Formats: sequence, C-alpha cells, structure tokens
Amino acid sequence: MQNFRFHNPTLLDFGKGTIANLSTLAPKDARILMTYGGGSIRQNGVYDQVKAALKDHEVIEFGGIEPNPHYETCMKAVALACQEDITFLLSVGGGSTLDGTKFIAAAIPFLGDDPWDILAKGAPVTKAVPLGCVLTLPATGSESNGFSVVSRMEPLEKRAFFSEHVYPQFSILDPETSYTLPPRQTANGVVDAFAHVLEQYLTYEVNAPLQDRQAEAVLLTLIEEGPKALENPTDYDARANVMWSATQALAGAIACGVPQDWATHMMGHELTALYGLDHAQTLAVVFPATMQYCRGAKKSKLLKYADRVWGLRDGSEDARIDAAIAKTEEFFRSLGVKTRLAEYGVTEGIGRVGQRIAARGEKIGEHAKLGREDIDGILALCAK
Amino acid sequence: MQNFRFHNPTLLDFGKGTIANLSTLAPKDARILMTYGGGSIRQNGVYDQVKAALKDHEVIEFGGIEPNPHYETCMKAVALACQEDITFLLSVGGGSTLDGTKFIAAAIPFLGDDPWDILAKGAPVTKAVPLGCVLTLPATGSESNGFSVVSRMEPLEKRAFFSEHVYPQFSILDPETSYTLPPRQTANGVVDAFAHVLEQYLTYEVNAPLQDRQAEAVLLTLIEEGPKALENPTDYDARANVMWSATQALAGAIACGVPQDWATHMMGHELTALYGLDHAQTLAVVFPATMQYCRGAKKSKLLKYADRVWGLRDGSEDARIDAAIAKTEEFFRSLGVKTRLAEYGVTEGIGRVGQRIAARGEKIGEHAKLGREDIDGILALCAK
Repeated sequence: MQNFRFHNPTLLDFGKGTIANLSTLAPKDARILMTYGGGSIRQNGVYDQVKAALKDHEVIEFGGIEPNPHYETCMKAVALACQEDITFLLSVGGGSTLDGTKFIAAAIPFLGDDPWDILAKGAPVTKAVPLGCVLTLPATGSESNGFSVVSRMEPLEKRAFFSEHVYPQFSILDPETSYTLPPRQTANGVVDAFAHVLEQYLTYEVNAPLQDRQAEAVLLTLIEEGPKALENPTDYDARANVMWSATQALAGAIACGVPQDWATHMMGHELTALYGLDHAQTLAVVFPATMQYCRGAKKSKLLKYADRVWGLRDGSEDARIDAAIAKTEEFFRSLGVKTRLAEYGVTEGIGRVGQRIAARGEKIGEHAKLGREDIDGILALCAK
Repeated sequence: MQNFRFHNPTLLDFGKGTIANLSTLAPKDARILMTYGGGSIRQNGVYDQVKAALKDHEVIEFGGIEPNPHYETCMKAVALACQEDITFLLSVGGGSTLDGTKFIAAAIPFLGDDPWDILAKGAPVTKAVPLGCVLTLPATGSESNGFSVVSRMEPLEKRAFFSEHVYPQFSILDPETSYTLPPRQTANGVVDAFAHVLEQYLTYEVNAPLQDRQAEAVLLTLIEEGPKALENPTDYDARANVMWSATQALAGAIACGVPQDWATHMMGHELTALYGLDHAQTLAVVFPATMQYCRGAKKSKLLKYADRVWGLRDGSEDARIDAAIAKTEEFFRSLGVKTRLAEYGVTEGIGRVGQRIAARGEKIGEHAKLGREDIDGILALCAK
C-alpha cells in the first residue's frame, strides 16, 4: 500500500425529507447566494422546499448555471456575490451546479489576476467562501470532495481543480429529488459514478485488498441498482442506493493508498469541450477503449475486475479480459448510453484530442506515460 | 435504507515514516499533553520519533494509562492538564490510551459535578480540548471516531460515550509501529475490528447493498491479512492492511443507513469489568453465541454472511448458518483467541452480567429487545 492522507470534512445528511434540515445546517447569520441550474428545481418541488427551509435566512439567487458549468457564467455569479457581500454559497442541483459553485467560492477571494488560472495553471487556492449543497442528481460525487470541473467557451477548454477549501461544509442528499430526472440523466449518473471507481481501481496492484473490495462494492451496487432506478424512477431504495454509491465513488476512501488513472476523464473532457457530448457519454465511449489499449499495463487488475465484478472465471486470461471489457460496454449500452464516437456523430478531427492534451505537455494515465499517439490509438478503438 | 447523517472530520495520515509529520500536524502554539500507556513506546522507538517531531513544541507527558483505561487515572491527567494550562492532547499508543485521552479531553472543560456522569448518565459533552493521535495498535477504530470506553474500579464499571467533540483532529497511522506488538495484541486487534463490523452488519435487511458489501470488504480483508500479520510480524503490507481495516471498521461509513446491534459489546464490557478479560477475548467468546441465540432475528443477514464471507452456499439454511457460526469461532481460535468462558477460568456468577445490564434498565441488540434472560441464554451458549 502507498502512503496517503485522507481528510473529508463534509457532513452528509442523507434521506427522505432532509432538505428541511437546511434551516439548521445553513449558517444563521450568513448572506447566502443560492446557485442553481436551468430551473428543473422549480418543477420538481426542490426550489420550494429549499426556500421554505431558508425562510429565516437572507438568500439571494443566481440561476442558470449550465451543464459543464461555464467560466463566463460563474464569473457573473462572482460579481454578484461581491456586490451583495455574500458570505455563504448554497448549490442546489447536480454536479455541474456544484462544480460551478466551488469555482465561484474559490474565485471570490482569489488574489491573482485571473481566476481562470486556478483551472488552467493550477494557481493556488488559499481560501474560499464556505459552501453547502442540496444534491438533486447522483453522479459526480462532487457533494463530498474538493474537485470541480469548469468549462470555458473562448477558447474552448474544460479543466479541473482540487482544493481542500471547496469541500462542501454539508451536503443534503434526498434520493426523492432524483425521482423526476430524465432517463438520460439517471443513466449518465450511473456511468459517471462507475467510471470514477474504475479510474481508481483499474490500475496496477499495490497490495491494497480492502480498497479493491471497497471499489468493487460500489461497482457491483451500481450494476445491480442502476437498472432498477431507470426502470422504476420512484423506487426509493434504488434511488438511494445509486445516490449513495455515486457519493462513495469519489469521496476519497477507495483512492487511499492506491495509484489512480484518470486518462479517460482527460480525454473525455476534451471530447465534451470539442463536440459537446455529455460528460458520461464521453466516459462510456472512452473507458472500454482505454481498458483495451492498456490491457497489458492493467492486466492484473483487469483479471481481478473480470472475476469479482463480472464473475468471469473461465477461459484464458486474454479471453477473460476481452469478456470483462465487453461486459463493461454492454452495461453502459444497457443503460441507454452509446459507446462509440460515430454514434454521437463524431467522425472528424478526433486527433485534436491528443493534440490538445499534448500541447499542454501532459502525459496521462496511472504511469503518466500516455502521449498523443496513445490517445489517438485509444480513440481509434472507440471510433465506431 | 434508513436516513442518516455522516460526518467524520478526522485527518488520517497513513504510512511509513508519518510520525515525522507531527511537526506540522500538531498546532504550533499549543501546550501539548502527550498521553501514553505502560511504556512500550519507549522500547519500540515511537517515543523517540514523537519527541523528535515535537522538538519545537511545548510538551508535557502523562504516562501510565492502562488497558481499559481507568477513570481514576484519567482524572489525574485532567488535574495535570488544568494545572499546566494544556490546550492540546496527543495520544500516543493504542485504543485504550486514545479512549482515555478522549475522556480527559471531555472532562477538562466539563461543567457538571462529576465527569463520570458523561459515561454513566450520558451527561452532554458540549466541548472538549482538541486532540490528536499517534496509533500503535490497530484494533478499536478510535483513531477515526468519536467513541470512548472507560472503566472505573470502584464501583466496577466499564462504560462508553460518544461525542462529535472528541474526534481526533488528526491520527497518524504508521503500520511499522505495530511490528513489535505481542501476538496476543495483534490477534486481539483483528478480533476487535472483525466484531465491530459484525455489530453493524449482522442485523436485519434494510436494502443497503453498498454498506453490506463495504462491511464484507473489511471482514474478508481481516480474514486474509490477520493471519499474515501474526505469522510474519514485519510484513509491511499485512500490517498496513490490518491497520486500515481496523480504522475502516469503525469510521462510520458501514454504519450509514443501517441498524446496529452492539449487544455483544455490552455483554463484553461487563465481562471485562467483572473478570478482567481482554476486550477482544470477550468479543470472541460472546459473538458466536449471540449469532446462535439470535439466529432467527438475524437470519437473512447470517445467510448473506455465510455466502459472501465464508463461501457457504450448499445445504439447508440452518446448516449454512451453523457453518458460518462455526467458521467465525474457528477464525478467532485460529488467531489464538479462545472462545469459551471456561477457557478463561470464568465459571461462577455469570448471571451478574445480565443482572447489571438489566439493573440499568437497558435492553440491548438491534431491536432493543434482549433482556436479562436472553443474556443468560447467550452466555450459557459460550460457557464451555
């Protein structure tokens, strides 16, 4: 096992009816900026629940944070927050709203010239406005970590940052808020969480059997519960199990003491920036291809994955690895998420993905060895 | 799944050489009371590592905290801490030293008449002196939770409390510190951690498949790694895997949204108070008997445990449950921990256990239904 530090200070309040607890979780004397997305929270009752819980708080609203939240939009919220002397941010929505809110939290007190540097140049985040979250879409795990991914329209970029200062102080997770999600978002959430686990699990052996089993626990639960949530959107337990799995997928425990990959995410971010695919769509496309391309380096973990997650114990090692990759792709497709670039109309200029990553001087993957040619090779495997 | 709150703010610094990080983890301006046990830290080099890391800090020492830390000893530390204007406590040792230190932390600013009320009457802990920990014995999980168990000599009592204020701010977990543990303490630690998981897992189904699998992950890892640590005490990975398993066993995640039992611990605490058995010895004795006595109420979970933890899939339900209980007892015995009261010379007056618990008006177990007769019945099953 590798040495590690683990620290996750977020309070999670999970279950039916927990949005009412905002009245005590949100700091009493704060001036709160409530951030949200395109307005689905007005249709599904979440907006009303939040406003009712915060009736004795000072709340200013900022709506319109997009999926793959835009830097430009976030900077409008930063301006509003400064103008209104905001002291607390409350994200109400899915991972995009929350990621945008984390960036807003870091950008408000940022001392450098341009907050975009936090994303593009790793400029240090030394403080942030405290924030909380009401989650309505289980997927990104952002509700219990310090990660944020933000996109810029000009020039087209999608970049991530991490800071210990942007862990939510609390996150409220009421599975009932996910009842009204469109199937596409439910399916995307399951794929996203599944891919988060794979990024931390499908690397190489470092003798960390507990972390391996904790990762498999999330994968097996998503395979079992994801389809139930899709089939019966108001199945409380299925929704709760998917929501908790998505949180646990990226709350830090399964990353303790093990190497991590994240190559698929790096390529996926470029595909979203260039072609507008949903984040989970990019992962469903790229992950099986990454497994295939890196099957040598990932061999021992692919065999463990085949055995423990898919029950594949017969045949040669190569046959089991082939079958595990096929099972992964089938699982994504069974949720309705397509797994080939051509199916999303992406057929031209795919070389730009590797070009853009290489231009930043980055090599990716758990060995930091994958360069432009490898990326081309991976994307060729999932072209059609 | 049941509603739940999860909040674990402890920073864990895990791995070889991490004691040196005390120099930055311990608050710079604090007056630190360093607490420890019987002095094994002087033999195994931990004392020297801690002192070296804290050479620029103000440190006062308090040694001699016993296994099953004594209220009387803790109160001496409270007096010293008040006299010396201590502002931070650093526990260096195993779970007993840490549990004692948590009680000291809560007792120093306690506003009631008698700090024993925190343990005996659930008197509220509204604040505590901040504390940190260097762990040398993986077992109790105290390094990452708000629990503490303290014993009193007159009258004989062993009682527990929980407070959000006594989570360690940080815990340093260097698996190498466990190389020199006597086999009895290594084995006890594995049994203790295993029993902690069972208390949270072997109850009844509430449709929480992720938490079930996370619990099984810890159990399977302890079964695999515990014997390796005993056989080869300087096997770093085995020591690391046992240490991380013991922490994860009681850090809160597997308790999320599920019922909990703790009847075995309640009976075990009485056996330690009355007869002086090691904590883990009491668990090794009582747990198989509790499984046997409560096999009806715990049926579905016992069958899951038989299947997933012990691979028992053949035969009738009763036969599988019998086999799973036998496997559990065999596992404890294989580690060298005896599982019958008579083997510890306990043959007389066992009825006092149920009597004492009943006298407090408590019913125990996940259904809070087990009373004096049930306790007598359970202890009869593990008498000899």
